[in-house]
Amino acid sequence: MPVPIIIDCDPGHDDALAIMLAAGDPAVDLLGITTVAGNQTLDKTTLNARRVCTVAGITDVPVAAGCDRPLVQPLDVAAEVHGPTGLDGPMFPDPTVDVVPEHAVDLIHRLLAEHPEPVTLVPTAPLTNIALLLTRYPRDASRIREIVLMGGSTERGNRTPAAEFNILTDPEAADIVFRSGVPITMCGLNVTHQALATPEVVARFVALGTPLGRTCAELLTYFGSTYRALFGFSSPPLHDPVAVARVIDPRLVHCVDAAVAVELRGRYTRGATVVDLHHSTGRPVNASVAVTLETGPFWDRMVGAVEALGARAHGPTPT
Amino acid sequence: MPVPIIIDCDPGHDDALAIMLAAGDPAVDLLGITTVAGNQTLDKTTLNARRVCTVAGITDVPVAAGCDRPLVQPLDVAAEVHGPTGLDGPMFPDPTVDVVPEHAVDLIHRLLAEHPEPVTLVPTAPLTNIALLLTRYPRDASRIREIVLMGGSTERGNRTPAAEFNILTDPEAADIVFRSGVPITMCGLNVTHQALATPEVVARFVALGTPLGRTCAELLTYFGSTYRALFGFSSPPLHDPVAVARVIDPRLVHCVDAAVAVELRGRYTRGATVVDLHHSTGRPVNASVAVTLETGPFWDRMVGAVEALGARAHGPTPT
Amino acid sequence: MPVPIIIDCDPGHDDALAIMLAAGDPAVDLLGITTVAGNQTLDKTTLNARRVCTVAGITDVPVAAGCDRPLVQPLDVAAEVHGPTGLDGPMFPDPTVDVVPEHAVDLIHRLLAEHPEPVTLVPTAPLTNIALLLTRYPRDASRIREIVLMGGSTERGNRTPAAEFNILTDPEAADIVFRSGVPITMCGLNVTHQALATPEVVARFVALGTPLGRTCAELLTYFGSTYRALFGFSSPPLHDPVAVARVIDPRLVHCVDAAVAVELRGRYTRGATVVDLHHSTGRPVNASVAVTLETGPFWDRMVGAVEALGARAHGPTPT
Amino acid sequence: MPVPIIIDCDPGHDDALAIMLAAGDPAVDLLGITTVAGNQTLDKTTLNARRVCTVAGITDVPVAAGCDRPLVQPLDVAAEVHGPTGLDGPMFPDPTVDVVPEHAVDLIHRLLAEHPEPVTLVPTAPLTNIALLLTRYPRDASRIREIVLMGGSTERGNRTPAAEFNILTDPEAADIVFRSGVPITMCGLNVTHQALATPEVVARFVALGTPLGRTCAELLTYFGSTYRALFGFSSPPLHDPVAVARVIDPRLVHCVDAAVAVELRGRYTRGATVVDLHHSTGRPVNASVAVTLETGPFWDRMVGAVEALGARAHGPTPT
Repeated sequence: MPVPIIIDCDPGHDDALAIMLAAGDPAVDLLGITTVAGNQTLDKTTLNARRVCTVAGITDVPVAAGCDRPLVQPLDVAAEVHGPTGLDGPMFPDPTVDVVPEHAVDLIHRLLAEHPEPVTLVPTAPLTNIALLLTRYPRDASRIREIVLMGGSTERGNRTPAAEFNILTDPEAADIVFRSGVPITMCGLNVTHQALATPEVVARFVALGTPLGRTCAELLTYFGSTYRALFGFSSPPLHDPVAVARVIDPRLVHCVDAAVAVELRGRYTRGATVVDLHHSTGRPVNASVAVTLETGPFWDRMVGAVEALGARAHGPTPT
Repeated sequence: MPVPIIIDCDPGHDDALAIMLAAGDPAVDLLGITTVAGNQTLDKTTLNARRVCTVAGITDVPVAAGCDRPLVQPLDVAAEVHGPTGLDGPMFPDPTVDVVPEHAVDLIHRLLAEHPEPVTLVPTAPLTNIALLLTRYPRDASRIREIVLMGGSTERGNRTPAAEFNILTDPEAADIVFRSGVPITMCGLNVTHQALATPEVVARFVALGTPLGRTCAELLTYFGSTYRALFGFSSPPLHDPVAVARVIDPRLVHCVDAAVAVELRGRYTRGATVVDLHHSTGRPVNASVAVTLETGPFWDRMVGAVEALGARAHGPTPT
Repeated sequence: MPVPIIIDCDPGHDDALAIMLAAGDPAVDLLGITTVAGNQTLDKTTLNARRVCTVAGITDVPVAAGCDRPLVQPLDVAAEVHGPTGLDGPMFPDPTVDVVPEHAVDLIHRLLAEHPEPVTLVPTAPLTNIALLLTRYPRDASRIREIVLMGGSTERGNRTPAAEFNILTDPEAADIVFRSGVPITMCGLNVTHQALATPEVVARFVALGTPLGRTCAELLTYFGSTYRALFGFSSPPLHDPVAVARVIDPRLVHCVDAAVAVELRGRYTRGATVVDLHHSTGRPVNASVAVTLETGPFWDRMVGAVEALGARAHGPTPT
Repeated sequence: MPVPIIIDCDPGHDDALAIMLAAGDPAVDLLGITTVAGNQTLDKTTLNARRVCTVAGITDVPVAAGCDRPLVQPLDVAAEVHGPTGLDGPMFPDPTVDVVPEHAVDLIHRLLAEHPEPVTLVPTAPLTNIALLLTRYPRDASRIREIVLMGGSTERGNRTPAAEFNILTDPEAADIVFRSGVPITMCGLNVTHQALATPEVVARFVALGTPLGRTCAELLTYFGSTYRALFGFSSPPLHDPVAVARVIDPRLVHCVDAAVAVELRGRYTRGATVVDLHHSTGRPVNASVAVTLETGPFWDRMVGAVEALGARAHGPTPT
């Protein structure tokens, strides 16, 4: 039985591959895709989600746009990482997939209500939509099986020395989510930096011989160029698919239980996820925190999903 | 032309009289009443709104329940001020007015959409519902004529030395509202402490000779007892009706323009409204701040509204 | 028996009159004058203290310079209030009083050690020197009878809407002092704003017919001009002498006990003194807080001190 | 020419070995040892410094006690790491080395004044004394060649998930030091966790065959037991000697330039050192930050110093 999930994202290069992994892997059932402002403005992240669905042949999953700004601070996008479009690199055709006429939060609410079992949410973006869902529909908390998110870090940040981008972009939303009582799995930079898209990985996408494989390679090449320039990485870390991988097979991403608090007030540390790995603070455990990625199997699933989608996207060659 | 308004409240003794003022005064057109957690839990404040409508004969105004907790902190009610029911003092009959099956935020959204002109919101409670409205329906900002709120202070607080109860209960919501760009009028403790329900005022309600007048007197008597015990006031300040009075006739409540910021981070000052009366901080003006109440005319309108409702509630004696 | 005191100041117009009150009133014995950076840089406040001593004929009191900056933030002087010299208005002759070659903190330490009884400290400036004394010489706490300071407010601030200048200039120092366990009396803006130097008051100084009386009138005239321009005051509040007056005769300044905390962390409220007048926070009382000034007797003592100094300064006319 | 240094410490197991390294290595000239409250109370850390000097035969270096508490918060010692004495493990004889009758800050000031060249300060404790020195004697900043401190981290903390013990114990003092303009080298947990006292290392101390070598082994054994229990370390990290090693030979500890800020305000992150390794914040570089330890040569110097002291301590056997 595939695990029913909804991806809440702000594509974004790694979001794009997270969508593909979720749509192409048989272990999960992608019920919906919702977008939020983050890596770029809501208009751009929504357009990018439609572009990804179009090129990946994901035509049966509803896409809905959500919040266009964080709860209590202005939006500050990551154009220096993802480019002015939010998904620089490949040329995309005009999208043929459209959004549904519902707010992201209402779509998630409806999908949670309609699905017979609790659903896993996989946010790979600022947590604005998820916090709004929990505020507007507090009873939906019991309909969520788990929130497996990409965000935060047990160590240093990336947007600032202390804070990771998704959490820093809407710290109050993150705080709402981490204190919600819903089971949380946090896939932070400490584990996503193990998902480095090396030249060998890029070559595997190219070797698929499909347009989608080539698109993935182009995305990773652009992403690699900004990561090299900004952070000195030799290969770019593919953050968001790690969260999807944890849902696909928990054995791919090893976790430990810990208390996680979001720093809202620091002058230099706002948006930091403070993870009590040694249980020294006395704060109760509220999250499962990813610490180790099984890199080989992870890339196998990632490449396999793109391969499966590539076949589906283009259909059987007519004889 | 009466001004169309929606009251967002957490009754609460002074909320009760604010509802009566809004329903009984001909200068405003009360389109809806929404409730939120604050002085008491959402269940209690909603029940209390229904009780007030029932005893005041307000049967044609939709009542909807909203958020049951602040955005990013736990609820901390004011039972020591308003009693365990949130409206201690009078005996209330079982309410005959029911809530509509809509969330407060959706009711406000619908009323804003349906009314031909922009509508004034009058929050007399923590600003959770209003912040949620602005987050979920950002375009509604242009449908709001003004937000005239009871909350904050240019001077000391009441819940803490620095913070007033409505703002302290949900500081992030207040911050969202004050930074929203919607025109704001803040009626804080500095002006509502001028609305003291002296024995002479209470006597005027009794002298109306109506059940509703008596109920008001009982509410004020209970409210007076807690204010005397907690704060040493000789007569209780009737905070919330001041905001309604400002809408009824701006000449009743004198205001000055100022930059108002909500302190979110202080250790001792969280929830304080920092009002730059002398324009010394360089922050741009974002609110009209009430400074002086015309006490005599204010009580005339307040007593007059209760008188009008009392007559309406019981109808003319058939001949 | 006059009360032995040390004034720690940053003259400053009102500091100047505080020095004169302390030197000219028989109820206190002025053991020393120490200076600190605040209203102006340390060089200027020290020069101003020497100027005041010179024109007031205070030649037997040691003057020592102390800290040239706050403990943990840069200095931000109040030139807009006290002028570029820190004591604008009168023309001062070259000072004939010099500083002693000791750091302010070492002078206070020595005076505390030498005096047979505990000594009252009267800081009318940022509390940097006093905090440094308590840190460097922790045992001196028991040699201090009381710290009667001008600073803070039970209501609004002056430097910012929330914070008074002396406390805001060095909040960490204020925090050290308020948590030191030494008996504290706080004379804040709420009481010093009752010490308005009206035209009648200024006329009394002129009527003394002495050069020093005229100098006081010129100081108050300049101070009045900046207070009118910045804050809209019709007459300037003479803050610092109120603290001296409290020592001279406690009946001049009525006080209540309260817990006082210094806000160190707020974004808009740093430097605020949070005074728990209603004992609602559960924090223990750590200060006596001035609330009412006996205005008439206060000015009688202030003018009387200047009169006494004026006579002393110029000596008996030779026959 | 050996580098003249003063160690400011709170022994403390690793402080003990830092003192031995400084006293026993010919590349530095240990001018003085000052103590401060930290790992234990000032009485205990001062006694421990005397004990270390006694057993190590360090009889010609003045020892002075300094501050008994942090600047603006209560002292919270680390008894769970260093034991109730602050130096649990070995049995120490009664110390024969006494303190000089000067405050630590005055001793440092005097040594800075007397030494012909600027002197390097090596704080291995909370920075209270150093901050007090810079506040009381601001001109001494130009007499300090460099401050090479053990404290902080580029990654996680140890006392809390975000903060290292020395910095968290007195964050305001650390802030004063890092913003002082004096050249700073920070040896944080990220580098000191490379100085693991493995069983092989302990065996090297034992193999010296001297009482001092045995004492070192006992100190490391106790320290190892608490690090294993609290943090799961297989061998304890010998933090403080790393700072001394950096002075002895800069090639032992590789550093990078970075802006370092001390978080004073966070709810969960107070005391964190926020190190801008990627120059992404725009804050100016104010420190050299240690990143890599040359482990082999480090232990050679450390063991060599203890060997040298052991010989000196007991002198030549009389014939």
